[in-house]
Amino acid sequence: MPFDHDKKMCLEKLATIDKSRKGDVDEAILPLVKTINSTRDFYTTSSCAGRIQVLTDSEGKKKNEVAWLFSSHDMVDVKVLKEALVSLPEETVWFRVEAPIIHLAARDLDGASRMLKLANEAGIRRTAIISFGKKVILELMVPEKMDTLLAKDGKLLVDDNYLAELVSAANNKLERSRKGIKKLKLLLQKDSY
Amino acid sequence: MPFDHDKKMCLEKLATIDKSRKGDVDEAILPLVKTINSTRDFYTTSSCAGRIQVLTDSEGKKKNEVAWLFSSHDMVDVKVLKEALVSLPEETVWFRVEAPIIHLAARDLDGASRMLKLANEAGIRRTAIISFGKKVILELMVPEKMDTLLAKDGKLLVDDNYLAELVSAANNKLERSRKGIKKLKLLLQKDSY
Repeated sequence: MPFDHDKKMCLEKLATIDKSRKGDVDEAILPLVKTINSTRDFYTTSSCAGRIQVLTDSEGKKKNEVAWLFSSHDMVDVKVLKEALVSLPEETVWFRVEAPIIHLAARDLDGASRMLKLANEAGIRRTAIISFGKKVILELMVPEKMDTLLAKDGKLLVDDNYLAELVSAANNKLERSRKGIKKLKLLLQKDSY
Repeated sequence: MPFDHDKKMCLEKLATIDKSRKGDVDEAILPLVKTINSTRDFYTTSSCAGRIQVLTDSEGKKKNEVAWLFSSHDMVDVKVLKEALVSLPEETVWFRVEAPIIHLAARDLDGASRMLKLANEAGIRRTAIISFGKKVILELMVPEKMDTLLAKDGKLLVDDNYLAELVSAANNKLERSRKGIKKLKLLLQKDSY
């Protein structure tokens, strides 16, 4: 079975290195990743638990051409963020909250359909099949995002008060966005997939 | 054929009223909507050409509970936006750029596969099947977004300079995001779908 072979290869790879930039699976999403990979009909191909980032303008650039000034998978302290903004580049600097996202392979379209239903039930509102050629690949995403300007020409565009409000809103979004991850794990375990 | 019947009903409805809040199809996306609906195997179920908005906190609220202070499907003049911010509510106010999005029904999974390929070719990077039960429904979305805080407790959190930079970046995103829409229309026409 190609699915079983592919799953075995992917899990072996996962055991040593994850495809994400960070080099391992984010801790906040690891319990769900493990639960998915323990099922018969699904395995994860990549995942991110969501993060708060400060980065240079990514417009038209490849991922490896973007400079990260700050990146955290955990709630952020505004003081720590400010330390990352002491020396600013000339390029436009963006503040971004990325939502949790999971890509997973399903054995077949029936399995995909079940998973989409379950993810919706967990409150993961953006769920879809992004590929169904050789493999059926699903994307589960929590649509909690923020994306705005922070600095330009080496100067901050916002004051301390705004920065504090931004971080507070970002922390709330990050926390809220992870509820769906926890719920999906519980639903998967409950239903013994 | 259920698809042909559903398509006819949907297009008749579209001729009088669109499902979107605004009550008609956005002008910037109308040529693509018409092209899709002229094909044999696809019809649009909803669409938005993308927009720049200012709205009260949408957290946990239904769409009709959110207050729109400003909404534009076109490029925005910062002076016009500022007029909308003269009287601010006590709730948190967000500035948002929503990307163009199209939902469309495909006759079958083969058709869906062809459309996803074409949309990717057009540079519409987020394309997926969001439902394939009774109907095969696709979502085509350009991932150009902005989402940030603007005001709280009736007071603006940012200065005029930041507002101008924000609007400039938003206009750029809106313009850029529409390139995919135009390209997909041309590809559909060229390939005589």
